[in-house]
Parts: sequence; structure tokens; C-alpha cells
Amino acid sequence: MTNYEQFLSRAAERMKESAIRRMGTVLASGRDVISFAPGYPAPDTFPWAEFREIAAELLTGADAGVLQYGPTRVYRPLLEVILTILQKRGIAASMEQLLVTTGSQQGLDLVARVLLDPGDVVLVELPTYTGAITAFRNVQAEMIGVPQEADGVDLSALDETLARLRSAGRRVKMLYVVPNFQNPTGLLIGLEKRGKLLEWARRRDMLIVEDDPYRELFFEDSASEADVRPIKVDDAEGRVIYLSSFSKTLAPGYRVAWIAAPPALAAKFEMAKQAEDLLTGSLDQRIIFEACRRGLLDRQLPLLRRHYQHKRDVMARALHRELKDLVSWPEPKGGFFLWLTLPDALDADAMIPRAVQHGVIYVAGEAFFVDAESPTTPGPRANTMRLSFSAPTPERIEEGVRRLAAAMKAELDAITANPRASASPAPSPASR
Amino acid sequence: MTNYEQFLSRAAERMKESAIRRMGTVLASGRDVISFAPGYPAPDTFPWAEFREIAAELLTGADAGVLQYGPTRVYRPLLEVILTILQKRGIAASMEQLLVTTGSQQGLDLVARVLLDPGDVVLVELPTYTGAITAFRNVQAEMIGVPQEADGVDLSALDETLARLRSAGRRVKMLYVVPNFQNPTGLLIGLEKRGKLLEWARRRDMLIVEDDPYRELFFEDSASEADVRPIKVDDAEGRVIYLSSFSKTLAPGYRVAWIAAPPALAAKFEMAKQAEDLLTGSLDQRIIFEACRRGLLDRQLPLLRRHYQHKRDVMARALHRELKDLVSWPEPKGGFFLWLTLPDALDADAMIPRAVQHGVIYVAGEAFFVDAESPTTPGPRANTMRLSFSAPTPERIEEGVRRLAAAMKAELDAITANPRASASPAPSPASR
Repeated sequence: MTNYEQFLSRAAERMKESAIRRMGTVLASGRDVISFAPGYPAPDTFPWAEFREIAAELLTGADAGVLQYGPTRVYRPLLEVILTILQKRGIAASMEQLLVTTGSQQGLDLVARVLLDPGDVVLVELPTYTGAITAFRNVQAEMIGVPQEADGVDLSALDETLARLRSAGRRVKMLYVVPNFQNPTGLLIGLEKRGKLLEWARRRDMLIVEDDPYRELFFEDSASEADVRPIKVDDAEGRVIYLSSFSKTLAPGYRVAWIAAPPALAAKFEMAKQAEDLLTGSLDQRIIFEACRRGLLDRQLPLLRRHYQHKRDVMARALHRELKDLVSWPEPKGGFFLWLTLPDALDADAMIPRAVQHGVIYVAGEAFFVDAESPTTPGPRANTMRLSFSAPTPERIEEGVRRLAAAMKAELDAITANPRASASPAPSPASR
Repeated sequence: MTNYEQFLSRAAERMKESAIRRMGTVLASGRDVISFAPGYPAPDTFPWAEFREIAAELLTGADAGVLQYGPTRVYRPLLEVILTILQKRGIAASMEQLLVTTGSQQGLDLVARVLLDPGDVVLVELPTYTGAITAFRNVQAEMIGVPQEADGVDLSALDETLARLRSAGRRVKMLYVVPNFQNPTGLLIGLEKRGKLLEWARRRDMLIVEDDPYRELFFEDSASEADVRPIKVDDAEGRVIYLSSFSKTLAPGYRVAWIAAPPALAAKFEMAKQAEDLLTGSLDQRIIFEACRRGLLDRQLPLLRRHYQHKRDVMARALHRELKDLVSWPEPKGGFFLWLTLPDALDADAMIPRAVQHGVIYVAGEAFFVDAESPTTPGPRANTMRLSFSAPTPERIEEGVRRLAAAMKAELDAITANPRASASPAPSPASR
């Protein structure tokens, strides 16, 4: 038999399956499980009729480019549309700074490949987005987490961590943040803190990777346009690599996102993308372009804000009703996620089989911590979980929270009946 | 000012823009230039009406998955379609061996990331496909070329090269080949040689990466189904990683291709893909699935074979007529490419400005050599070029060859008038 271990790269030896993607597999099994796991947008909000019309108009054969290879960097008219979107957000970018990516996941991967060598350190919010963890891990970088306060990453902990790492001789190049309605906590970085982060990056000669997929989805009862001002807006020195996407506002199946970065880095991202997939899907880019050109995106945004705000309300109310005394969470002012802290006795990962039994699923919080990467960061909090309220209908959210409450109470009863069950909460790395 | 050099990874320092992609930029300039450069399929062969119908049927909103996130590995029904295609080619694969990729370029990149560490050696045909060069270079692997004979890679040179490298302590894991109508030479590996390659891989404990995008495009006047039998068919030991694609048979704008590999490696490719782009476009995968399910692919193939055979004929006849005494080439029995050898005095790369002046463009042969990667392989042959006959119309092929002939003769005249012009043919690496 062929021994494949000997052929693997060191990067491949460390590769793991993402916890969220694994949840997808659970769901594909076909049981009636209400999923709060993956951060899927609500498909009933997709403008199907308009997409159908656009696709039919594009696929006449009049423009061969619709199904042909094309430039790596972008379908040019789409680039102009993105520049306009950036302008609306307050970001003055130019052609040389822009690159379309095959989803923001590719953006993260390009950032990782162009900027990180094995052993380099990335500072991340704690907890942080799993897709970024995967991209950084796959280039053998090390992630060190910095705790978050109510208005985002703790600045003094950030600077202390950096100082400690640098004095230990570590190469630390960047801070990765999701400033708006963070995945997984739903937190928003305060405006004052954004300015300080930029000032810190300048002072410490650091780059900031600003991942901003949820920016348009602020909830008007508690946040506004002013609160989601990208850090990139004030980036006079070119220290911010800004990522955003159409996946949460038009549809993720198209895989169209973008990076705005200093031209020297954008050129390298383009070269890395050439090797990764030559170009982002031509039809996808054209459909997104047409959706923007025809005003479809602009018409969607207020609808989406109301849609997801309503679902946030439904989930929050159901949690109050069913689990008020047991759980707590910071109220999300936008985005897709609600970050739940459970009683200390509960281990969200260990509870998954019981939750599935009750017909509900979520992502255990530990998937968003990076402590397994480093013994110097605080350990994962086993008693946390991420709930996505974005995809299920309001009725399913209600029912899902009821099921979650039943599962949680059953788990607590089991632990009370047999305390030993709670004595082994340490999750094995393989379960990630 | 921010100094970006200090932030680059070692991989990024080595990244270069691909010569072929650069040609795309020349073309985008809008002049009347007939392009024999990129290997684009002919867009007038795309089944536009059927694609339009399929897209309209898919985009009703009845199936949310059409525009939603989905599993990394593949949209399941598409996987079954691919298994059937593989069966027709004689390859018995299973679910665990398959992975859809965002074009075969992503397949090459996943192979590189999962199997190669910096400094590892990949053996490649000389000349070889630039997209593979880019993918392998981006993980800092070294490529060593092995010359080709009329029936493909030279087996004794291959084995000697491997022995020499291994005795020098180098880690050599894989041979990369394009067995059918190779890009760029159009050569076909002989059937007997395919068996010997497999036997060699077993004996030397090597993997073979078999990149097979052109397999269906054999020209019936000189090749048949039997001649394009994949090496993978006889791969009892699991030594072959097989890549193929819908880009050349349906349309490249969809970015849908696949890998068939031993399950242990396919699982790692999936993890690497999770970090690269989460999933291949959902709409793209559905359209390709429907095109296969409805028999569209099967109906296209005979048409495509005749279409490209005719264009090969047109180009070969024009070359005979215009340049018979100056150039030579192996007659392609399929695929998109014709590999031209020019008079020794000519440097195809240096001649590009004159060619563009005359309104024609090609890829200079040196882009397909890997000598810049290693002093141990034979140098690039400056007097070679790759001509793609796939995309231009027959009339444009005729006209393009006339322009090429005029450019070539003008270049020869200039060299005769001023011999110093031919004394500096050494291309700078930066021009690649």
C-alpha cells in the first residue's frame, strides 16, 4: 500500500476540518434539525425574480465574456461599482487598490499567503472568526488572541501582548478584526476605539486586516450608518487591508467579494490569486455587477436590515422566555449572530449530541478560540455558543430556542444526577 | 511611508505575474490584435440558449441551495455526474476520492499546498503548463524539467534526473504531466509510455499528477478514444492524482473542475479548499450539473472535436503557406495548441513588440520552461512560441498567421541589417 503520510506538506499535516463546515455535514443528514449553526443568509430574501431576469439577459451570447476566461483582478465594470460602494462607506480607493476575490474566504487566504510565513504571529480578537483561523493556520502562522470588551478588542491587552511577543523575538505583522457585528460575538468596535487602533498600528508598525461582511446589516433600532464607519476610512498611511463581500447582501452562492489594500499588496494578492483560481466566476461577476447597476443592491439593504432585526428580536425574546435565568448575551446591533454564555457547568461542545437529539444545532464557542494554537492565551470557554438567527424563519427560531432550552435543562439534570459527566468537559482537539 | 516589503512572506517575494495573464492585459487595451495567446475556448461553441434556459429554471427560488452556501467538497448530484464521466473514461472512482474545484487551477494549487514544502522538487515535462509552474512556485517548490520525445516525457531522462536529485538529498515527490494534447506542445503521451510511467511511479515511490483538461478534444482524423486513456485508469496502487475540468467542454466562466485522488489525499484537499474559498460557486455547480444531466455535454463533444480540428487545419495550412521554410511544429492530434519552433536567430519574446505592431500576439515559449528555477535543467528555447488556434475564427486565424509571417520576416530583416539586435536575446526574468 502507498503511504500517503510521507507525501504531505507540513502545512497539510496541521490542516483540520472546520467545526462550522462539519455542522453542515450534520445538517445534510436530512433529519429535522433546526440549525442555528452556519451563518447563512435567509434565502427568501434573495431577489430571485431579478436574478432570473439578469441571468437570462446575460446568457444571450451577445457578450462572450459572460462565460469566458477573463482578467484575474476583476471584471472591470464591477470594479467601478465596488469603488462607488466604497465611496459611500467613506473609503477613497483607486483601481490599483482593488481586487475581486472568490468570496471573502479567498481574501483571507490571499492575505495569509502573501503576508505570513510559518511561525509568524497574527493577533486576533478572542473569540474570532473560524474562517480566518483556518486560513492563517494553513500557512502555519500562529494566532494569539486578545480579549474583547463591550466596545471591542481590549487596547491595553493588545499592546501588552504585542510588546511581550516582540520582546520574545516573535515576528508579529498584523491584527485581524471584524469591526462590525463580529462573527461570532455580534460586537461592534466603538468609534473612538477604531481611531485608537489605527493610531496603534502606525505607532507599532503593524497592519490591520479589517474583515467587514456585515457592515450594511445594522439594525436601525440600535445602530446607524455612523456606527459602522470602517477603520479603513481614516487610513492615511495604508495600514489597513479591507475585505468586504456581496455574500450577505446579495447571495453567497455567487462567491463574489473584494479586497481594498495598498497597491503594493494588492499586486501581490493578484499574483497569489492567479495561482489559486485564475479568476472569480465570470457569470457570477456579471450578475453581481448588473444587480448593483440596476439598483437592486440598494433596494435590498433596508429590507435586509428589517428582516434580520426582526429575527434578532424573535430570538432574543424566545431566549428571555425560555432561558432567561440560565444564559446571557450581548444584544447584537446588526449582523447574523448572537453569542450565548451558558451556566459554568455546561460544556456546549459536549452537549451537541443531546442538542441534535432534541432537534437543534449550534456552533460550540470553543471553535472560535485559538488557545489550542498557543498556551499563552486564555483557554476556550466551554460554556459558550454561537447562535445564527439569520437563516431560519421566525417560527423555526421560536421552536429552535424551545428545543435548545429543553436540551440544556436535560443536560443540567444529567450533570446533577451524575456529577462525573461534568468532570470531563475537556474537549479533544480531534473534535474540532 | 509604510514599507510593505518587510511584511511580505517568502512565498510572496517570489511571486510573479504569469506571462499568459499578462498577454490578457495587452489584449484588453482594445487594439485590433489577433490573439493566439491565451488558451480560450471558442465562445460561439457555447450552448448559450440551453444555458439560458437552465439558469432561468434554476433561479425560481424553489431550491434555495442554488444561491446558498453549501458543502465544500461538492454539490452532491454533480459528484454523481462526475463519477459517470470518469467511468466512461475507464476510471473507477468513489465519492471519497472526489472533490470539485474552482477550475483546475485551484486543483493544482491544492495539490501544491497539500503535498509540497519549500525546497521540495516537482518533476515536470519540458516545456510545461504555466499555471502549474505558478502554483508550484507559490509554495516555494522547485521544478526540474525533463525533455519530451514525440510520444511524451523521456523515460530514461526522467529516471536519471530522479536518481541524481535523490542522491543529492533532494525530496522529490511527484511528476506533473498533461498526457493528452499537452499545454503547450500539443503532444500526446503514447499508451505504452503511460503504462511505464505508472510502473516507474510504483518502483520509485512517486506520485503522478495527471492534468487532463483536453482529453475529450481529440481530432478524429488522427486520434481516438483509445489514445487518450488516462494514466489513472490503471492506477491500482493509488499513485495518480487526476485533474479534469468542464472549462474546455462547457465553458470556463463557470469555474468548475474536479480532482480524483486517493481518499487520504482528497480529504486533505478538501481541508485546504475550505480555507481557500469555502465552496465552488453554487449556481455554477448547478448549471454544470443540469447541462450534464440533460445530455448537453454529450451532445457538445462531437461538435467541439470537429470545430477545433477544423481550426487546427486552418492554422496548419496557413503556416505551411506563409512560413513553411522558416518554422516547424508537431501536428496536434487534439486540444488547443500548436508549438512552433522558429529559426535560431529569432527570439520570440524579444519579437513581441513587433508582433503587436503587426496586430498579432502569442506566448513566447520561454514562459513554459522552468530553467530559471534551476541551473540544472536545459535553458529555455528562445526560438519557440505557443499558438492557440481555439478561440479565433478561421478567418482571423488565416489573417493572424499572415501577420505573424510578416512580423517574423521583418524581424529577420532587422537582425540581418543589424546583427547586434540578435546578440542580446537573453530574456530578463522580469519580463516573464
